[in-house]
Amino acid sequence: MIYLDNAATSWPKPPSVAEAMTKAVKELGANPGRAGHQMALEAGRGIYRTRVLLAKLFNIKNPLRIAFTQNATYALNLALLGLLQPGDHVITSTLEHNSVARPLYYLSQRGVKLTKIGLNEAGEFDLDLLEKSFQPNTRLVCLTHGSNVSGHILPIEKIGALCRSRQVKFMVDAAQTAGVIPVDVEKMNIDILAFPGHKGLYGPQGTGGLYIAEGIELKPLVTGGTGSHSEYMEQPQVMPDQLESGTPNTPGIFGLGAGVEFVLKTGVEQIHAREQALTEKLLAGLRALPEVIVYGPAEERLPVVSINIKGAETSEVGFILDKVFNIACRTGLHCAPEAHKTLGTFPIGTVRFSPGWFNTDEDIDKTIEAIKTIIKEMKGA
Amino acid sequence: MIYLDNAATSWPKPPSVAEAMTKAVKELGANPGRAGHQMALEAGRGIYRTRVLLAKLFNIKNPLRIAFTQNATYALNLALLGLLQPGDHVITSTLEHNSVARPLYYLSQRGVKLTKIGLNEAGEFDLDLLEKSFQPNTRLVCLTHGSNVSGHILPIEKIGALCRSRQVKFMVDAAQTAGVIPVDVEKMNIDILAFPGHKGLYGPQGTGGLYIAEGIELKPLVTGGTGSHSEYMEQPQVMPDQLESGTPNTPGIFGLGAGVEFVLKTGVEQIHAREQALTEKLLAGLRALPEVIVYGPAEERLPVVSINIKGAETSEVGFILDKVFNIACRTGLHCAPEAHKTLGTFPIGTVRFSPGWFNTDEDIDKTIEAIKTIIKEMKGA
Repeated sequence: MIYLDNAATSWPKPPSVAEAMTKAVKELGANPGRAGHQMALEAGRGIYRTRVLLAKLFNIKNPLRIAFTQNATYALNLALLGLLQPGDHVITSTLEHNSVARPLYYLSQRGVKLTKIGLNEAGEFDLDLLEKSFQPNTRLVCLTHGSNVSGHILPIEKIGALCRSRQVKFMVDAAQTAGVIPVDVEKMNIDILAFPGHKGLYGPQGTGGLYIAEGIELKPLVTGGTGSHSEYMEQPQVMPDQLESGTPNTPGIFGLGAGVEFVLKTGVEQIHAREQALTEKLLAGLRALPEVIVYGPAEERLPVVSINIKGAETSEVGFILDKVFNIACRTGLHCAPEAHKTLGTFPIGTVRFSPGWFNTDEDIDKTIEAIKTIIKEMKGA
Repeated sequence: MIYLDNAATSWPKPPSVAEAMTKAVKELGANPGRAGHQMALEAGRGIYRTRVLLAKLFNIKNPLRIAFTQNATYALNLALLGLLQPGDHVITSTLEHNSVARPLYYLSQRGVKLTKIGLNEAGEFDLDLLEKSFQPNTRLVCLTHGSNVSGHILPIEKIGALCRSRQVKFMVDAAQTAGVIPVDVEKMNIDILAFPGHKGLYGPQGTGGLYIAEGIELKPLVTGGTGSHSEYMEQPQVMPDQLESGTPNTPGIFGLGAGVEFVLKTGVEQIHAREQALTEKLLAGLRALPEVIVYGPAEERLPVVSINIKGAETSEVGFILDKVFNIACRTGLHCAPEAHKTLGTFPIGTVRFSPGWFNTDEDIDKTIEAIKTIIKEMKGA
């Protein structure tokens, strides 16, 4: 199996991830923060350790400003629904995943105003238009760090500076970038950062998180047992307890810790360099084929390559790649319909290849060969 | 280590649980329902399999009416916040965990009316008062199946019949009972059932679920990627997708499947019989000690025994049990302050022992001996 679906979830995971989860399940039958016994304390320490590792990766000063969530979708909803009020204006983009687009649409039906920024004529993110879109009631700029469809990387550091100078909060969806390219909340002026645990951080599915800067208060989506301040009927306001009601996913968070440790040890720059080389190799091979349309930016991009073969159905190409060539990719809209409208691939979608750290040059060669064979057989048919 | 904190989370888990999780992490790098490749299909099948096992356990006709959540707290919030409107009246109890009490308190601040039923003079759940509490605007009866503090088991089947005859929806928090005593949504007339995965179902932390009967529509708390109907800005209304936005916890749900399989294979009645025998042994030993106050019902109860030693701090007793005797229990309010007010143990709390399937008679003997020793040394001091 050649796995080229790392934008959906990274695979394989470093062996330490499953080991950390197994350790948590087998050795730590404990509900952290809810009891004083030894296993509960050790579970609590392991969870805190993962917070510290994440804080190191994202240059977050206070690890307790990170709340764990079951996925990035929940983190994004928590931030948007917990922060925005009717009358607020939000600047966002047409490249967003449904995990941002849908809650923003929901809020837009309830009095929140949206401005969506797309690509300029050069096919790059329209930073000029963004700069002109600030209004007196702009409360938030909410953008993906990078597109899961086209691979566009947004100029987050520049946008962060624009937001800071206007005293507008800046929220970033790092679903495709956490662990893949550098994310530094201080340098990039990011006030709110949502991230999944199971993509570039190599943790298991079921994990993710939300960082909120000091001074930002979110209304929690759910309330309940927090282990702390049990005597009050109102949800405690202390972070991260306020946003982490109920028993946490201890095995998942232990696994995420192992994943983040792998990223820190390997180095994001090194991971990026390797994935970039694989991506450029794939792009070069595919761009050489006149029957292939390659979408996305001309130069710098994430390890995400969306294509179509002229005259072929995307789902059929994906099916053949899987069944005949044992290559796992993804076809369709990738939960980001507006990104496809922006690229002109709605509603047909694209075939998306997303290489990862564990792919080899040979994987890429075989993928290009497979596409060539599919084209040849199409012509012969 | 003698582990008597199964009401917080069951431990140990059957070995199949960690094995299923490891298999999911190592062999299935896939986002189920998001791609067509083989690993994604296998992940989707494994998740559906867990739904089927849960449906079998709870006698649910359609497994797709079960949505997976990261814990019972989220499931409970999802149901309460997704169903109730200002002006609705809810009947609940004073034995609820904060995961029910806090969202209901939140709703009560926004126009939802609450009636709370406690214990009668005999110390049993006041069913007569509940029957008298129905009002024309009663929308929901929301009760715990059993108390995590006192061990009281509520007469759910009788209450379900009362609700059905009045056409009032009935919601049950099975946090302490799923896998511990029989839960049958048909026989008990349960319309909404919330359950954790990591207690009596022996799954890992980070899992739980919500069953909603056909015909009940909940407003989702979060919206986002569902893998289905990606082209619409509005959240799809099909179950379970509507309530399961974002990447699911595939390893956790695989582990939960293994846990539920263990429960089905062992038999809930058999598990209950064994845990009841351990509980009665513990109760008999503790009731024989005049220095010990044992709380809870005189007869039938869950495997939950809350006590205090006269003249001793609960937290100190828990600390000594852990450090000196290597016995893991839990002290304090157990996230259910009102239950303690009902029992007269607020704010001091209780020392809670919760035996499980994997405990032995010897564990119980040693625990009783430990309590005896603590009492003796207190007297000597």
